[in-house]
Amino acid sequence: MKELSHLLLLAAFAMGSAIAADPAPNGITLPQGYKDWRVISVSDRSDNNTLRVILGNDIAVQAARAGKTNPWPDGAILGKLAWENSVHPKWEKATVPGDFVQAEFMHKDSVKYASTGGWGYARWVGLDQKPYGKDASFAQECVGCHTPVKDNDWVFTHPAKLP
Amino acid sequence: MKELSHLLLLAAFAMGSAIAADPAPNGITLPQGYKDWRVISVSDRSDNNTLRVILGNDIAVQAARAGKTNPWPDGAILGKLAWENSVHPKWEKATVPGDFVQAEFMHKDSVKYASTGGWGYARWVGLDQKPYGKDASFAQECVGCHTPVKDNDWVFTHPAKLP
Repeated sequence: MKELSHLLLLAAFAMGSAIAADPAPNGITLPQGYKDWRVISVSDRSDNNTLRVILGNDIAVQAARAGKTNPWPDGAILGKLAWENSVHPKWEKATVPGDFVQAEFMHKDSVKYASTGGWGYARWVGLDQKPYGKDASFAQECVGCHTPVKDNDWVFTHPAKLP
Repeated sequence: MKELSHLLLLAAFAMGSAIAADPAPNGITLPQGYKDWRVISVSDRSDNNTLRVILGNDIAVQAARAGKTNPWPDGAILGKLAWENSVHPKWEKATVPGDFVQAEFMHKDSVKYASTGGWGYARWVGLDQKPYGKDASFAQECVGCHTPVKDNDWVFTHPAKLP
């Protein structure tokens, strides 16, 4: 029994970084391995003082590099990680990431998410990745904020130019 | 002969994104596949109005996630991609990437690059990735600018916090 409990402890430890956060209220789960996704763009928002990086799964990155993002293809997932703005301690004219704010995702499925513009929205707040929203209606808030870019397939991000 | 020239054209086309840029004046070559590297941090510099993403090769990302970056391990390569600041057309409080400025790299090798703080510096400018610097002495300019962070192993970047 002692060996078994040690084994279970070891297994739990090994799984540490793979333990899933709770799903969003609309059932969307946190994409595994999103921190290893490739970069599509970055942004700095002065209205809420956050720095952001926009990542994509393979389908999204392929679409971004091919310039085929209006509409984005079904299966694309965009991930946006946000940090509070902070001043670099040795270069005060540089804004750098402070505390981690949230990770939010848009899943493109033009059939499944037709009622929210073809995108399924989800957000996890803080380093402990707490799902955002009390019930599935939170997505209406996302759609409302994204309305200014409905002509860009509801996406704010334009892929950054790359060599 | 016609088939051969077609084949050569096809081969050139297929290699398109793999054609190497010229090496930097100190002999450092542009790392292949750097656009697929993982994110370590981002920054927004108001002194030269550029947005940046800092990427790393596998050795660098492992060190960043393990918090072992002072010093960074030999073999680590940091890549910094910079774009001119631009205003989002539909969200004026968001600064987003405009024209691509440059990709610059730091290669950690405490023996090979001992004369420049253990790092080999290189930069390629613009979408056509023209090497920066007239001769190998350009690296002194890099070292000079990095002197404020010599106590952080000559690196400005602190890895962004991640869940």
